[in-house]
Amino acid sequence: MKIRVDVMLKSGVLDPQGKAIGHALSNLGFEGIGDVRAGKVIEIEVAEIDKAKAIENAKKMAEKLLANLVIEDFKVSVL
Amino acid sequence: MKIRVDVMLKSGVLDPQGKAIGHALSNLGFEGIGDVRAGKVIEIEVAEIDKAKAIENAKKMAEKLLANLVIEDFKVSVL
Repeated sequence: MKIRVDVMLKSGVLDPQGKAIGHALSNLGFEGIGDVRAGKVIEIEVAEIDKAKAIENAKKMAEKLLANLVIEDFKVSVL
Repeated sequence: MKIRVDVMLKSGVLDPQGKAIGHALSNLGFEGIGDVRAGKVIEIEVAEIDKAKAIENAKKMAEKLLANLVIEDFKVSVL
């Protein structure tokens, strides 16, 4: 089963990478660019066949390793 | 309108970051970890209100700036 974990900075946290991307897009001539946020996505192939258990496990992975919960939120989904 | 661009390494391209995450997860005691791929996600707030045009625009942004099409694939979606 393939699990996907999306990790984004929390909404209140300054995102310099997103800001830089926004400026670069405007400089390239794209109009109407507002707030830009950059994040990570991690796709994990797991042996687990029970969907609920796989999601539960992926949440633990996110909490332990993939996301910094002080500044980041994560979302787990099954592909 | 909020547009989301997912950028992942193409399947044939070596992904050292994904490999490192996979090893770290195994070392942390998670079992049955297979292939791990790491990618980027960029969420862009755009002024465009026409969905088709916004997607079209976002594809251009990905081709010009957000993705390196030699080694990366991208996917555009509307949030």
